[in-house]
Amino acid sequence: MSQTYTYQQLYQFVHAIFLLMGCSHDDAHTATKVLLSADVRGIDSHGIARLSGYVRLWEARRIMAKPNIKIVHQTPSTATVNGGAGLGLVVAPYAMRIAIEKAKVVGTGWVSVANSNHFGIAGYHAMMALDHDMIGIAMTNASALVAPTFSNERMLGTNPIAVAIPAGSQPPFVADFATTTAANGKLEILQRKNEEAPTGWVQDKEGQASIDAGELKKGGALLPLGGDKEHGSHKGYALGSIVDIFSAVLSGGSYGPWAPPFPAYVPMPQNMPGQGLGHFFGAMRIDAFRPAADFKHHMDNWIKRFKRATPIDAQQKVLVPGDPEREMEAIRMNEGIPFLQVVVDDLKKVGDKFGVQL
Amino acid sequence: MSQTYTYQQLYQFVHAIFLLMGCSHDDAHTATKVLLSADVRGIDSHGIARLSGYVRLWEARRIMAKPNIKIVHQTPSTATVNGGAGLGLVVAPYAMRIAIEKAKVVGTGWVSVANSNHFGIAGYHAMMALDHDMIGIAMTNASALVAPTFSNERMLGTNPIAVAIPAGSQPPFVADFATTTAANGKLEILQRKNEEAPTGWVQDKEGQASIDAGELKKGGALLPLGGDKEHGSHKGYALGSIVDIFSAVLSGGSYGPWAPPFPAYVPMPQNMPGQGLGHFFGAMRIDAFRPAADFKHHMDNWIKRFKRATPIDAQQKVLVPGDPEREMEAIRMNEGIPFLQVVVDDLKKVGDKFGVQL
Repeated sequence: MSQTYTYQQLYQFVHAIFLLMGCSHDDAHTATKVLLSADVRGIDSHGIARLSGYVRLWEARRIMAKPNIKIVHQTPSTATVNGGAGLGLVVAPYAMRIAIEKAKVVGTGWVSVANSNHFGIAGYHAMMALDHDMIGIAMTNASALVAPTFSNERMLGTNPIAVAIPAGSQPPFVADFATTTAANGKLEILQRKNEEAPTGWVQDKEGQASIDAGELKKGGALLPLGGDKEHGSHKGYALGSIVDIFSAVLSGGSYGPWAPPFPAYVPMPQNMPGQGLGHFFGAMRIDAFRPAADFKHHMDNWIKRFKRATPIDAQQKVLVPGDPEREMEAIRMNEGIPFLQVVVDDLKKVGDKFGVQL
Repeated sequence: MSQTYTYQQLYQFVHAIFLLMGCSHDDAHTATKVLLSADVRGIDSHGIARLSGYVRLWEARRIMAKPNIKIVHQTPSTATVNGGAGLGLVVAPYAMRIAIEKAKVVGTGWVSVANSNHFGIAGYHAMMALDHDMIGIAMTNASALVAPTFSNERMLGTNPIAVAIPAGSQPPFVADFATTTAANGKLEILQRKNEEAPTGWVQDKEGQASIDAGELKKGGALLPLGGDKEHGSHKGYALGSIVDIFSAVLSGGSYGPWAPPFPAYVPMPQNMPGQGLGHFFGAMRIDAFRPAADFKHHMDNWIKRFKRATPIDAQQKVLVPGDPEREMEAIRMNEGIPFLQVVVDDLKKVGDKFGVQL
């Protein structure tokens, strides 16, 4: 069973909640836009379904509604930002704007962020660069659910990477993916349906391959992209590690197994080596490399050529990263966004707490 | 059967060949060092075994021994380099040095390169940053052997990414990997042994899963990291695409299915949209983000913590990227580098051509 809401209904609801948490008008607007960008793009695990989680972190005083976000270190092409324990939904766009401003001046901008929280979908922040004819890059570390190759210990988050690249007449190239075989949200969907997971997604707490979609609740772990050594899991492990280091070791955030947990009921790790979650952002001006019109002409050519690559099955054409999410966005902005009843019930409880009606 | 040579023996042989091809003394030195760094690190597919391939490209006038390498576009943090159809082994360190020089001034440096050729191992170039207390990044596109998710057409190269990150008392973190499930070199080893490939490495020319290690010779394709859609091959495809775009669309190189082939007997693609292979390099000064001593202290902590992650099998400890190659380097610099007889025979033929003895 599901219920459908328009973007505007959801916007008003979420915006009101963030305001009542104490966010400024601007911050509430930004946080709402970032959060809902996941829902409209079909990444349901990272959208409004997480609102109650953010509220619980705020209640636990792990998220500050009026954060003191500041640049603590910088050069012409870099900055390190302390997010003041703010909503990642607010801290991340702040940091990405700095990257864009630096790119305007010296060609590229790179910003590492500490003391932040969950920032929604990485793709939103990367895509902020597109309007400026820049390539955007966004990544974040996250609480540890992933075991490195050869280990049964949870050491890394699903640590996503997003890269957005502008084109000319074609829509932009937008890749946004967890550095694991499958994101946690996909496992949750299988659990709800009582289905098994494909091999290579999870292992049990002893480190043995498993197809139990509920393995994480039993002490198991998600697997790095590749699944096992024979299929390149050391590459997924390396990618997740790079995201962790760029996001949290460069910035002074809390890295690896010490990354703060998203569920507010999970105690904070002992002996944290830094502050909060970390993110990393990049913006590269296209015309810092070649005239933007030339680049866009060739990006259009790239995209059209890849869409024309011979399909294995004529019914399933080759996709360019970003295609499915953009198509979903067009549908959902038009027809509304459907939610499972459990999500609606959870949202209504949040609404009751603040006296706001969905 | 194999034969073992010391680094010094190989250095003298390769250096002499490059000199006789017409390279300057400096370029011959650089090219030899880069090429042999693969052999000493155990990446045999990218070392001296490729020397005859480089020579054939030079004979075909696809590689110039005295290239006119030049910066064609730049900003304070970026440059675009035209490699003048030089050896990638020479063009890549030239471009990486520019990235490092820019990082010294404005914090980071980013260089996209067109009109180059195969550059050896990406890791060598990324590691150039380490001595400067910088993070190094290197990637390259390559001739098309990889089919995107849902396609049976070869559209991308194995497009490797290398990231080198300095530490303090610990050895550096050095990731260097193809964005495919397995590199082509691993398939060649299986073919020599007449063994089957694991699932997820290759598909046949119809796009069906295959375990035939010789599938590439029959029109099949390598698969992006992940192997198939269910195991995240769309992520490997996205990664390989990002490498292709950063390396060749940004620079004016020839991208996607139009990347020039390594074997000189394969005709150049028709209607190439740019010049030669493309690379992309980055250098980020650690102290552009936080004091280098702080960063190194935390990198040491990161590395030690990951090495201590609980192993599944007590005999196989968790590795940090770069560990196996560094251990191999220590062994081979001490004990010499073993080569299969077929490789030695091929090298001797190259030597005969130039009147140089191995």
